[in-house]
Amino acid sequence: MLPDSNKKTEIDPFGTSIVADYERLYKEFGIEPFKPLLSKVPTPSFYMRRGIIFGHRDFDRILSAMHKHEEFAVLSGIKPTGEFHLGTLMTAKEIIYFQQQGAQTFYCIADIEAYEDNKISFKKSEKIAVDNVADMLALGLDPKRSYIYRQSKEIRVRDLAIIFGRAATLATMKAIYGKRHIGLYLSALVQAGDILLPQLESFGGPKATVIPVGIDQDPHIRFTRDLAQRFHRKYNFILPSSTLHKLMKGLDGSPKMSKRQMNYFTLHDSLETIKERISNAFTGGRATIKEQRELGGIPEICPVYEMCLFHFVEDDDDIVKIYHDCKTGKLLCGEHKKQTIEIVLKFVKEHRRKKKKFIDKAREVLQLE
Amino acid sequence: MLPDSNKKTEIDPFGTSIVADYERLYKEFGIEPFKPLLSKVPTPSFYMRRGIIFGHRDFDRILSAMHKHEEFAVLSGIKPTGEFHLGTLMTAKEIIYFQQQGAQTFYCIADIEAYEDNKISFKKSEKIAVDNVADMLALGLDPKRSYIYRQSKEIRVRDLAIIFGRAATLATMKAIYGKRHIGLYLSALVQAGDILLPQLESFGGPKATVIPVGIDQDPHIRFTRDLAQRFHRKYNFILPSSTLHKLMKGLDGSPKMSKRQMNYFTLHDSLETIKERISNAFTGGRATIKEQRELGGIPEICPVYEMCLFHFVEDDDDIVKIYHDCKTGKLLCGEHKKQTIEIVLKFVKEHRRKKKKFIDKAREVLQLE
Repeated sequence: MLPDSNKKTEIDPFGTSIVADYERLYKEFGIEPFKPLLSKVPTPSFYMRRGIIFGHRDFDRILSAMHKHEEFAVLSGIKPTGEFHLGTLMTAKEIIYFQQQGAQTFYCIADIEAYEDNKISFKKSEKIAVDNVADMLALGLDPKRSYIYRQSKEIRVRDLAIIFGRAATLATMKAIYGKRHIGLYLSALVQAGDILLPQLESFGGPKATVIPVGIDQDPHIRFTRDLAQRFHRKYNFILPSSTLHKLMKGLDGSPKMSKRQMNYFTLHDSLETIKERISNAFTGGRATIKEQRELGGIPEICPVYEMCLFHFVEDDDDIVKIYHDCKTGKLLCGEHKKQTIEIVLKFVKEHRRKKKKFIDKAREVLQLE
Repeated sequence: MLPDSNKKTEIDPFGTSIVADYERLYKEFGIEPFKPLLSKVPTPSFYMRRGIIFGHRDFDRILSAMHKHEEFAVLSGIKPTGEFHLGTLMTAKEIIYFQQQGAQTFYCIADIEAYEDNKISFKKSEKIAVDNVADMLALGLDPKRSYIYRQSKEIRVRDLAIIFGRAATLATMKAIYGKRHIGLYLSALVQAGDILLPQLESFGGPKATVIPVGIDQDPHIRFTRDLAQRFHRKYNFILPSSTLHKLMKGLDGSPKMSKRQMNYFTLHDSLETIKERISNAFTGGRATIKEQRELGGIPEICPVYEMCLFHFVEDDDDIVKIYHDCKTGKLLCGEHKKQTIEIVLKFVKEHRRKKKKFIDKAREVLQLE
């Protein structure tokens, strides 16, 4: 049925009310819609099929490399400020997907950014990084085919940051971050260094590179593409490509997950907490059961539905069924929450079991004794 | 006679018309006058005796270390943008002086700053640095008792820059540099890293450190002292001390040497050029010889006199004599230029002869093959 689910139903089980905004807001920045490329992707990912990856920059380059069996790279990373949550999990899965498609894989622990932006000491970062890397390995990242590093230990990235410094104006920095301290601006240069690292001679030189990010990270991609252009003569950089995914809502229905609002859970939270958070989540349900039976729910605004769509219901047919059962008033919120809690807890337990075995490997990969 | 030359003469042969401005301008920034300390310095340097070092920050700490035979450090450096001139020569002599007084010695090649501020590539910096270091060795720097390094190769300095980044506000950066690109601000953080490098555990931990600088560099000292304070808990830094020297005028009598105005010479210029530049220099002479015989010259505004005072007339009695002979109309500009050219060329020839022998050593010190 997929990717043409629209033919079957009047409304799109993979759409959300926010998509229109994305398109309206970002088209003017030169983001291309992903949909026209979908049929050309050899094995589209879950996020591609479901339209969660809704946009891209220069993804054609990656497709071309895939088709011609040329070398290409994927890079992403994590700011080691805490445990994996459903947001970081998205990028994680995207990297692993591209690795499985043959990409040279780079995973960056953004400890400089964690320090400059969140005042996380490098010592503390180290500890969190071990946990994050163990998560990645448990999710299926192949360490043998990955370069996993910490910004603070990767001299080449910092060399690039210094080189790029000449071309980073105050105006650009303010546009991305607002008025902040210099350290944060510095970390933006370091991040640009991360993104272009796969193209250095020591990694085989210039190549198509895809950076899977949430739409909120697009300014960094734009900034880095601009630097790649300016330093083209020196390094022969190919402008990095990106895929852009939608952001997950908070469990309270607000448009973003936020530490302050505690409107999400992490893979480290107790099973009890996770269960409670989902039980108490906002939904797209109606005021009364009667009303819901008559009118149906509104999955488009429902974070529990979104959780299933983004992560926990793997089969596309299954998610379409949930969508329809909700829309037609057949599936009520209580029942759906119960089902979801079951799948989530099963995943979390299984993930933890796997992860335990990878802690030592994670320490080894990060070159910690 | 020195340091109390004022008792002997009504006016100070070591004063210039600009001193008053220095004192008026900088006292409000917390700079202390150097003169009261002079009698406590075991062996005052040429620049101290002559009041060319007119101010300081916390130099008492250095005196105390000298007297108690405790460890202390001196650090300065050069931005590898060109050949040594009479300005860079001042700092060079100051470092060597402190080394001879027992200081642990650090000499930094500011290649990151040269890149960010002047777009000098690291490759070009390398070449200039060899030349600069050979100059230092020819002037008497003992490489065995010095740590000579390039910013771009000194990871600890860059680690410090990243740590300090959190505390560097945009407002401070703009106050020091104006609105510039982020790379230049980054180089200010790197410079703060240089200044505090001698206090890291790998160099024996916190210690009094003197940074001999021209008054124009004081904002950097202030910035670094502020950072040392903020990161005191983490590193136990002792606030760095400084000595502040007056700046040399341009040969055209303008207050600063400037590449654009070509109003100075370098130790690399041909003997012919040096001779010509001095011959054509502005002086403190009168319109006619008759007038000068009657009224005397004005050494206070004369760059040729200043050249002698700052560098080429080593004996304090000799410079006092020149001052008086000028003031009383006995010594005319033509004659004084002739004398000065002779001393300068003799110095330059002798310096080049010595320097030649140090090129290989300089490459070795900079770890170039």
